[in-house]
Amino acid sequence: MNKLLNLLKIQHPIIQAPMAGGITTPELVAAVSECGGLGSIGAGLLNATALRQTIQNTRKLTQKPFAVNVFIPNPYQVDVKAMQVWQKYLEPIRQKLNISSPAITQYAPNFDAQMQVILEENIPIVSFTFGILNSHWLNQLQQQGCVVIGTATTLEEARALEKSGIDAIVLQGSEAGGHRGSFLKPAQQSLVGLFDLVTQAVAEIDCPLIAAGGIMQGEQISALLKLGVSAAQLGTAFLVCEESGAHPLYKQAVLKAKETEVILTKHISGRYARGLKNDFIEYLQACSIEPLDYPVQNTLLQDIRQAALQQNQPDFFALWCGQGVAKARALKVADLISILTSSSSRKIRR
Amino acid sequence: MNKLLNLLKIQHPIIQAPMAGGITTPELVAAVSECGGLGSIGAGLLNATALRQTIQNTRKLTQKPFAVNVFIPNPYQVDVKAMQVWQKYLEPIRQKLNISSPAITQYAPNFDAQMQVILEENIPIVSFTFGILNSHWLNQLQQQGCVVIGTATTLEEARALEKSGIDAIVLQGSEAGGHRGSFLKPAQQSLVGLFDLVTQAVAEIDCPLIAAGGIMQGEQISALLKLGVSAAQLGTAFLVCEESGAHPLYKQAVLKAKETEVILTKHISGRYARGLKNDFIEYLQACSIEPLDYPVQNTLLQDIRQAALQQNQPDFFALWCGQGVAKARALKVADLISILTSSSSRKIRR
Repeated sequence: MNKLLNLLKIQHPIIQAPMAGGITTPELVAAVSECGGLGSIGAGLLNATALRQTIQNTRKLTQKPFAVNVFIPNPYQVDVKAMQVWQKYLEPIRQKLNISSPAITQYAPNFDAQMQVILEENIPIVSFTFGILNSHWLNQLQQQGCVVIGTATTLEEARALEKSGIDAIVLQGSEAGGHRGSFLKPAQQSLVGLFDLVTQAVAEIDCPLIAAGGIMQGEQISALLKLGVSAAQLGTAFLVCEESGAHPLYKQAVLKAKETEVILTKHISGRYARGLKNDFIEYLQACSIEPLDYPVQNTLLQDIRQAALQQNQPDFFALWCGQGVAKARALKVADLISILTSSSSRKIRR
Repeated sequence: MNKLLNLLKIQHPIIQAPMAGGITTPELVAAVSECGGLGSIGAGLLNATALRQTIQNTRKLTQKPFAVNVFIPNPYQVDVKAMQVWQKYLEPIRQKLNISSPAITQYAPNFDAQMQVILEENIPIVSFTFGILNSHWLNQLQQQGCVVIGTATTLEEARALEKSGIDAIVLQGSEAGGHRGSFLKPAQQSLVGLFDLVTQAVAEIDCPLIAAGGIMQGEQISALLKLGVSAAQLGTAFLVCEESGAHPLYKQAVLKAKETEVILTKHISGRYARGLKNDFIEYLQACSIEPLDYPVQNTLLQDIRQAALQQNQPDFFALWCGQGVAKARALKVADLISILTSSSSRKIRR
């Protein structure tokens, strides 16, 4: 009946959103898949070796299918002069954290090496964001029986992804936490609310659709399925789960946050992303120059975020989360999925 | 069954959104109400005399109920120095349009005088935006049997409005065209997608809810009713109708626009509003200083917008519209409502 669930070989129309930066531990991914949803490794920032290790560790915990998510590389400039301005501007933060500016040797993991690992490990489901997967890798994945899922933030992007021949599309509503997947128009012109995006896409896109952005409750999943999508992808709801690798103080900040504290910024990575405002973002936004291109800005600030995590300083974390944040609950994955699936069969109201 | 429809004494769960600036002509408002929806006069920018005239002209065309919408006044500063910078910056535009900067005598219509007209004319439904109606006017309206409707952009605002004792709440999703109604937090922190806003509000707000933002099709209305709202409010869909007072070149621009051309700007009025990017907005955004407070910025640019309308120069119009713009169709109101109500009973897909 639900073509996508058959394709993904999962029981519930629930996908744990790929979240980069150490959140999607083997424990989290495996727990979701074990409970009949689809766990996803957020591999965007993992190099090939770390990715292979994460995949193998996840396989030790589950034999069920899970997905790996990658970032499509985009061209970027390294503006040395602007970087020097930024490095100088960041000095007070590094002093506060007692670290020194590290030598930057690489801005992003090697994409082809990531894809090679995915093929060798025979990953059954690959999702991607920030663009369109080229036909070289798409063909190799599909020949191997892999289900390939792209990410669209506008109807235009959904059309382009469908045309590329992939198997399913995540519709990322403007409500979604973390990085915007926009690739055809600037992210700020691609902030379409989930309701509008879903109803437009359902009317003209043929491949299975997955709704994402602000989804926290079973009633919402049920409503989205009625609108015509095949599954829902949830990030924030899983981020605060016990099995998630998010820092305890990150979880705590999300659990007590209100929707109006969730903002959009491109100052942490050079790409627009949604999360909680903190001192870090305020300080970065006060800089006289623009953030550098993704992934340069992201790499520039990486040592600060890592030191902040080690020193339990959430003022300098990247606190990504979606607009449904007020409904986040500290649960085990099994309990969350049980609540989501039992309430998704009930009517919302009236 | 649908409490709100009984309250409003209308047949269909369709409200024509109040749009200021000459769009909601007596012809448009009356046509919507005659067809069983609820027409609304966008009175935010009308002084008492003009408002009374519009109400009386509308009554000549229909005996059915219609609403009047007002803007709750907010404190503002008149920064004389900044205004001089702006006036100088606007000179090239005024030269192009062959007009000279007019003397500004008033920034906004007198709110109490507007309310007095509404009471005297015994208007059956009053909606408002930009804040909470004070209890003085709320009590007088409700004692007279008037149904009072507020506008919320976040769950927090919906809670505050419900507490104030009004009869129904419009939930303005981030997709909506025109001015953001936000009043508790800055508009940029109050851009919640309609799906998230509706599902959150339905779960905890008791008074009838009206969904607004990006709604263009009957299938969407049907889906929103299933989510638990009592009606849908549509602006852009009615803006392009034959009976609307929007300039023909405004309608034309909206009819050919894509969702990714719709942006959010506070440069036209001093309050954030959603519409099509044009030369006007680009020129304004390039100014070295911030826009003035609403309604000062709005008044400052009023003569330019009016001259542009008279001279058929859409480059200097305010082209407000929502993110559903790609589905706008040039129709008569009767045909639009007929399409909306026949398709709203059908299932979207699958």
